[in-house]
Amino acid sequence: MNSLEEVLDFVNNGHKYYLPHMSIDSVIFGYHNQQLKILLLKWKGYNEWGLPGGFIKRREPLSKAAHRILEERTSLSNLFLQQFHMFGDSPYRVKERIPQVFREKFGLEVEEDNWLFERTLSIGYFALVDYSKVSVTLDFFTDDYQWWDVDDIPELLFDQKEVVEKALLTLRLQIYHQPIGYNLLPQKFTLPEIHSLYETILGKELDQRNFSKKLLTLGLIKKLDERRNIGPHRAPYLYQFEKENYEEALKEGIVHTY
Amino acid sequence: MNSLEEVLDFVNNGHKYYLPHMSIDSVIFGYHNQQLKILLLKWKGYNEWGLPGGFIKRREPLSKAAHRILEERTSLSNLFLQQFHMFGDSPYRVKERIPQVFREKFGLEVEEDNWLFERTLSIGYFALVDYSKVSVTLDFFTDDYQWWDVDDIPELLFDQKEVVEKALLTLRLQIYHQPIGYNLLPQKFTLPEIHSLYETILGKELDQRNFSKKLLTLGLIKKLDERRNIGPHRAPYLYQFEKENYEEALKEGIVHTY
Repeated sequence: MNSLEEVLDFVNNGHKYYLPHMSIDSVIFGYHNQQLKILLLKWKGYNEWGLPGGFIKRREPLSKAAHRILEERTSLSNLFLQQFHMFGDSPYRVKERIPQVFREKFGLEVEEDNWLFERTLSIGYFALVDYSKVSVTLDFFTDDYQWWDVDDIPELLFDQKEVVEKALLTLRLQIYHQPIGYNLLPQKFTLPEIHSLYETILGKELDQRNFSKKLLTLGLIKKLDERRNIGPHRAPYLYQFEKENYEEALKEGIVHTY
Repeated sequence: MNSLEEVLDFVNNGHKYYLPHMSIDSVIFGYHNQQLKILLLKWKGYNEWGLPGGFIKRREPLSKAAHRILEERTSLSNLFLQQFHMFGDSPYRVKERIPQVFREKFGLEVEEDNWLFERTLSIGYFALVDYSKVSVTLDFFTDDYQWWDVDDIPELLFDQKEVVEKALLTLRLQIYHQPIGYNLLPQKFTLPEIHSLYETILGKELDQRNFSKKLLTLGLIKKLDERRNIGPHRAPYLYQFEKENYEEALKEGIVHTY
């Protein structure tokens, strides 16, 4: 949404195109060079930062909406985008999105009973990407974006701090049984490569020997009869994700490890 | 909802009390005597069975709505009730709930544009209870209930088969890091007791030695300096859930095992 015309149509007629009372918030984790970051947008005139998000079209499948919204914001498609929670415990969760704010921040005249100010529950999705490959699109409502370190997140709008924390907890819990991270390593990788990916995501040190034993026991990766030459007398073995488990997982969303 | 008056008010005015376009479906797993079952209701005049469910009041926190709906159906309160997924991929998921059906099955005259026939996404919650302790309440729309074996589930309404399968998969995945099952064992239990609980839930045999080692390593249970006398020369050690981990988990919903 860029032109004023588009925005006015969204504000005045959006309830005809979109389901009211619910939205999608995307938590996009970015990994690069052993850093784990998160994508936040700056809303015009606000001090707080916000998650990229949007609404579900009236006849649009939910998961398709999540992918569309992400693609509109980041040009990323075909991601492993995972739904993790629906947030709706505060009956007033968009109370800061009031007509006065729309007038002051965006210069838009909006009635009190506009659909945007009704109670809105939010469905959280997360993805893990290589942030060096993402180009972010700003629109009428936003004037900046930034990849923030997960340990140093600024003030967020509404209850989005809770959304981010829950996403991070879910990512960390699921790293051993969901196909998270497969797109961040070369197809054939060394143990130190996957070890530092997991250490970064979990935000803590992992004993290297126990870690590789665990991944092999769980059947997540397998050792290849192949090495990578990286210097004199240095040729570590290569590994890859267990292909069958991961193909199944990409379909089903879950690696069966128990 | 029992009287015709209540039902008519729900049908005609429900959109004033409840959020439209979304509902809650509860998957209630019941464990007893090494059997894992699931609670289903029979809708009047239907061949298919259905999950107990309901709607969210306009100012009601989401998790409170889930507990209220469950309590209305089963008299159960204070459960560990866990949200696991929002279902919304079919834009027509309540297409079978049409005016004609309401007329034929329930004798209710309802207009085409009634709020009940709009696209409705559903938020799935599950719980695990001792089914011998549950008393089920039927209402105007239902005339039977039954605890069905998870391996022998009948035809279900709408996309509820998918809801049940996803709930079962989530239960099985989370059994090692969520406080599931703590209410199904005595406070102090033997290894065979927890072993058969887990075998039943997972629907497969687990090597007893590896299983107990895993639970102890994960810090889920601890061995007590205490035994239970169950016969001559038979006095197995007792165990209990790691209290701190579990109290934390009951607050946060997650046992941190990594």
